[in-house]
Amino acid sequence: MVAAPASLDNLCINSIRMLAVDAVNKSNSGHPGLPMGCAPMGYALWDKFLRHNPKNPKWFNRDRFVLSAGHGCMLLYALLHLTGYDSVTIEDIKQFRQWGARTPGHPETFETAGVEVTAGPLGAGISNAVGLAIAETHLAAKFNKPDVSLVDHFTYVIMGDGCNQEGVSSEACSLAGHLKLGKLIALYDDNHITIDGKTDVSFTEDVLKRYESYGWHIQHVSDGNGDVNSIEKAISLAKQVTDKPSIIKITTTIGFGSPNKSDTAGVHGAPLGQEEAELTREALNWHYAPFEIPQEAYDQYRKAIERGATLENNWNESLAKYRSKYPNEAKEFERMLRGELPENWDKDLPAYTSEEKGLATRKHSQICLGALGPNLPELIGGSADLTHSNYTDIKGETGSFQPETPEKRYLHFGVREHAMAAILNGIAYHDSGLIPYGGTFLVFADYMRGSMRLSALSELGVIYVLTHDSIGVGEDGPTHQPIETIPSLRAMPNMLVFRPGDGNETTGSYRLAIKNRKRPSSLCLSRQGMPNQTNSSSEKVAFGGYVLEDCEGTPELILIGTGSELNLCVEAAKNLTSKGKKVRVVSMPCVELFEEQSDSYKEEVLPTSVRKRIVVEAAQSFGWHKYIGLDGDSVTMNSFGASAPGGTCMEKFGFTVENVLGKANKLLG
Amino acid sequence: MVAAPASLDNLCINSIRMLAVDAVNKSNSGHPGLPMGCAPMGYALWDKFLRHNPKNPKWFNRDRFVLSAGHGCMLLYALLHLTGYDSVTIEDIKQFRQWGARTPGHPETFETAGVEVTAGPLGAGISNAVGLAIAETHLAAKFNKPDVSLVDHFTYVIMGDGCNQEGVSSEACSLAGHLKLGKLIALYDDNHITIDGKTDVSFTEDVLKRYESYGWHIQHVSDGNGDVNSIEKAISLAKQVTDKPSIIKITTTIGFGSPNKSDTAGVHGAPLGQEEAELTREALNWHYAPFEIPQEAYDQYRKAIERGATLENNWNESLAKYRSKYPNEAKEFERMLRGELPENWDKDLPAYTSEEKGLATRKHSQICLGALGPNLPELIGGSADLTHSNYTDIKGETGSFQPETPEKRYLHFGVREHAMAAILNGIAYHDSGLIPYGGTFLVFADYMRGSMRLSALSELGVIYVLTHDSIGVGEDGPTHQPIETIPSLRAMPNMLVFRPGDGNETTGSYRLAIKNRKRPSSLCLSRQGMPNQTNSSSEKVAFGGYVLEDCEGTPELILIGTGSELNLCVEAAKNLTSKGKKVRVVSMPCVELFEEQSDSYKEEVLPTSVRKRIVVEAAQSFGWHKYIGLDGDSVTMNSFGASAPGGTCMEKFGFTVENVLGKANKLLG
Repeated sequence: MVAAPASLDNLCINSIRMLAVDAVNKSNSGHPGLPMGCAPMGYALWDKFLRHNPKNPKWFNRDRFVLSAGHGCMLLYALLHLTGYDSVTIEDIKQFRQWGARTPGHPETFETAGVEVTAGPLGAGISNAVGLAIAETHLAAKFNKPDVSLVDHFTYVIMGDGCNQEGVSSEACSLAGHLKLGKLIALYDDNHITIDGKTDVSFTEDVLKRYESYGWHIQHVSDGNGDVNSIEKAISLAKQVTDKPSIIKITTTIGFGSPNKSDTAGVHGAPLGQEEAELTREALNWHYAPFEIPQEAYDQYRKAIERGATLENNWNESLAKYRSKYPNEAKEFERMLRGELPENWDKDLPAYTSEEKGLATRKHSQICLGALGPNLPELIGGSADLTHSNYTDIKGETGSFQPETPEKRYLHFGVREHAMAAILNGIAYHDSGLIPYGGTFLVFADYMRGSMRLSALSELGVIYVLTHDSIGVGEDGPTHQPIETIPSLRAMPNMLVFRPGDGNETTGSYRLAIKNRKRPSSLCLSRQGMPNQTNSSSEKVAFGGYVLEDCEGTPELILIGTGSELNLCVEAAKNLTSKGKKVRVVSMPCVELFEEQSDSYKEEVLPTSVRKRIVVEAAQSFGWHKYIGLDGDSVTMNSFGASAPGGTCMEKFGFTVENVLGKANKLLG
Repeated sequence: MVAAPASLDNLCINSIRMLAVDAVNKSNSGHPGLPMGCAPMGYALWDKFLRHNPKNPKWFNRDRFVLSAGHGCMLLYALLHLTGYDSVTIEDIKQFRQWGARTPGHPETFETAGVEVTAGPLGAGISNAVGLAIAETHLAAKFNKPDVSLVDHFTYVIMGDGCNQEGVSSEACSLAGHLKLGKLIALYDDNHITIDGKTDVSFTEDVLKRYESYGWHIQHVSDGNGDVNSIEKAISLAKQVTDKPSIIKITTTIGFGSPNKSDTAGVHGAPLGQEEAELTREALNWHYAPFEIPQEAYDQYRKAIERGATLENNWNESLAKYRSKYPNEAKEFERMLRGELPENWDKDLPAYTSEEKGLATRKHSQICLGALGPNLPELIGGSADLTHSNYTDIKGETGSFQPETPEKRYLHFGVREHAMAAILNGIAYHDSGLIPYGGTFLVFADYMRGSMRLSALSELGVIYVLTHDSIGVGEDGPTHQPIETIPSLRAMPNMLVFRPGDGNETTGSYRLAIKNRKRPSSLCLSRQGMPNQTNSSSEKVAFGGYVLEDCEGTPELILIGTGSELNLCVEAAKNLTSKGKKVRVVSMPCVELFEEQSDSYKEEVLPTSVRKRIVVEAAQSFGWHKYIGLDGDSVTMNSFGASAPGGTCMEKFGFTVENVLGKANKLLG
């Protein structure tokens, strides 16, 4: 390896490399290899192209930068620091990966201003980026005018071999090609190394050809370690291709600069150590102490501050012009950016009486979407190819988001559940007021759970419309019948899991899901119909659980039900009451919200003294013992289901009033 | 549409179409479109190529046929029936999708002999097929001799647009190309229709070009509705390409034959109805009543019976020759086929005393794999690119399963968790005694949960090695720290979830995982070290939970611990005991097995009368109230984790002896 001359470019590039080396060494933990290899492309992109404002990381019209290979986060922290973000000082970098630091081991939006997406689980970032680009394209089509553009930015990604091996990125990038997202530009760090060693032990496909098959524009820069000029040319060209997303394969050397560890898996995820760090300094001709950056490099990088201020000022002028020429649109645009819901957004959500024929909650959900659609223009979503089963369409709207019709808000994700969730996350990360939702069968939440977890972790108000929520699915059989899916979602921190028991509760669930812009919601909805309850309440869904039917005084028995099984509780209670028993029915459409109520409310609904409790839910009982304890019982599923008509399945697996009564009478003694 | 002439080919093809139409009509539920469109390729493949024995569906050396587009199961049931399988009679077809029928709504291996993989969740089947082909290739390399081949079959797949959109198939097929699996042949039903309508709403990529980028051999048959000859030629050619997997895109019309519904989404998943069925009969020139098949068609199809008997006889002769020439190998081969473990397979599994330094359980796991390796040649597996973190290597073995070295048993899956799980399922489906295992970080179980569920549903003894099982992961932070993953796996029926608390329990977990050939196991293993316990027992892991430390008489308090938190219970108990308290420690390495013990054993371990119970586990408490009830307490995680050294995370989130003592003393009052 020839020592690089100390040009300004090299100083800037090596600033990234050495910050990564020194931070990882200091924390004795982390991934130096990627930042060392990607420093040239990071520098080229951030210094020559990225339109951002370091002093206002939330400036709306900034280019979005996604580090999909999130383990290489020191690249991002270095760039944020060098270009002058207040969120990452040199002290923050010294605290890399320590308790309470703003520089955690993978980039997290909720920890560090300037981080656009939480990355680390591979493939997630590039797939989020597709969502960011969809959001930009949609808002541009919706708000821009021939004489004023408010929405006009690129989405840039740095991704690695791991991102390209993960199926979620294949799904998302195939869709991105179909949608011709011309302002999405991915830089692929082709470094030939993954944790198991050389990529050729498992990954020898022609990546660019694959992207070409998706409809992407492809380029290759063969010397990503030194040829900054070619990287810049390639990015310039990619920007000019407006009818296709672009991928630029940039061949690099992982851990570039380290004489003994570069181009090995050893530099991927372990510190170089002091000795090798010194050798790297020598090889890179770097004469600075750890965490010391030459002023020339700072000066060059921090031109971004002035550029950013100018960019934002210009944009503010455009906004002022827009305000004066298009006051209504401006009002709408600025309301969305503030994250405020429109007035009366929920005014058309339906209420039901028990006289009205109950429907499947997936149907009630469709009615809610239809009622929200006209009053909530920021609602955007679709289905993973199950529109006519999930009923995720918005009544009265036709057409969908396509290359020719980006102003439309219905998204056909194709049979790509994982990409759907990641794209919904991306739309939420865009932070422009859009409210993303997406549907599939509940059982296929398993396909997208990786991204659902990121919705929960990153505090994204994504709404998952999950229909066919039990063995009530019927004939499609056990591969399509969720048993453990509901409890497994309830186990996830910050995820609201709704399982409404009729029309009013579906309305209540939607109202809460829309309002919760920092928590994702999973709406678990039935395929089959159920009656509207006399005492159900859309408002009380906010308590998570509430007394639906009650007796005089202290109950002898409490029946707890959700969703399509709520009515079994009501019917069983009627029978028991007619025989003189004192029975309460608690509807529990959202366990998480019930948990968050005051102790006194919870005690009121479920008095500690009443230990005879039965839960009825066509799912695994797992988790319910928190309420039924050691003394209660349950009518739940303890095995996979079966292929047969839904009513037959329900009956054969014990979801009958008789079975509930049998267990009740046994408990009552 | 021109009525097809009643040639024998057409009779045979239309037999499939009309069985599908009539069965779906009778059950008033199902998917007629795919069988109607794929009938020609189904006929061509099964009548001209597939080597199988209808009278012995388990004949080892049969070609494997996978219907990846599982919703089209009537295609498979029709072919099984027509070629003479006893498992699918005409009465079974009349019972399509009914309770207890052998013809469920999607193909299920455990319901119907002749079904090779459980399909329905899209993308799973083709990915399983990669596993089947890996198993065949490996066993051929291991057992075949220049003069006798025992293992020599193709794996055929019919897949649809949905399978090609799912990321799991991208992962698996990229790997299949890398591995040059020449005996894998996929027929891609290119019918342009999915549930949302024309595929061009979301799926316009060049599928064949994509497969070419993976290293597959590609072909296109443009008239899949009528040109059986071209289909046959393409399959013949694909068979001759032995150094690449093959995909043949066959353009068809969904619902072919139905005058008003073909080529629409309406025929995908709904009955044609009586009227359209009659019109279809006319269009197809089909003069038979529902469920009536012309004898000529039966005669043609059922030539498979004689062919199959001959094939099996010939193979049995080869086996006899092999037995006499290679008695040791034959003994091994036949033992594996019987599913018997070798004698003394577990003789080298380690036992530990508390004097021996405890390790991370991922390290203990590595020692177990090393101890099993030489004695259990059927063990085959690897990691999704985390070999040196999961420690999934087999000590003393070098090299891996590659095109040039198919006799090796270590698999580099790449960063492809979902494909890994599906491939492990495929190896298990091969039913040849191979014991598949695969590793990744526990948190990334979320990426492959769809296939883990299928392991559980289809009763496949896959072993998941899931390391980095808590916030003990440390610096990598919350994206890499499982919180809800353990409970969400415990919620899954038929999944054994082990979380061993030291070396002996790791040994016990492995012994049970290896023995359980009908249940998948998830081994949750720590990144960080923990001490070996004085009274831990590898044998008692079989009880799921057992008394590790005890007091005289009835305990006042029971501490329940798992994994790396078990020692906190032991230390806390010591402290409490020294203060005169009567405390029991229960180790609970496998909740599912504990649940399956007798009531008296469970009562012995956790007496109903002792309500002061605390569980200590660095995971969500969800599910634990089954043991701690309304009166106990827990030291568990109720939020996502954080990026910091593992020890710091543990301390900050309350996993300390002090915190356990605090809760204990509060309960003891």
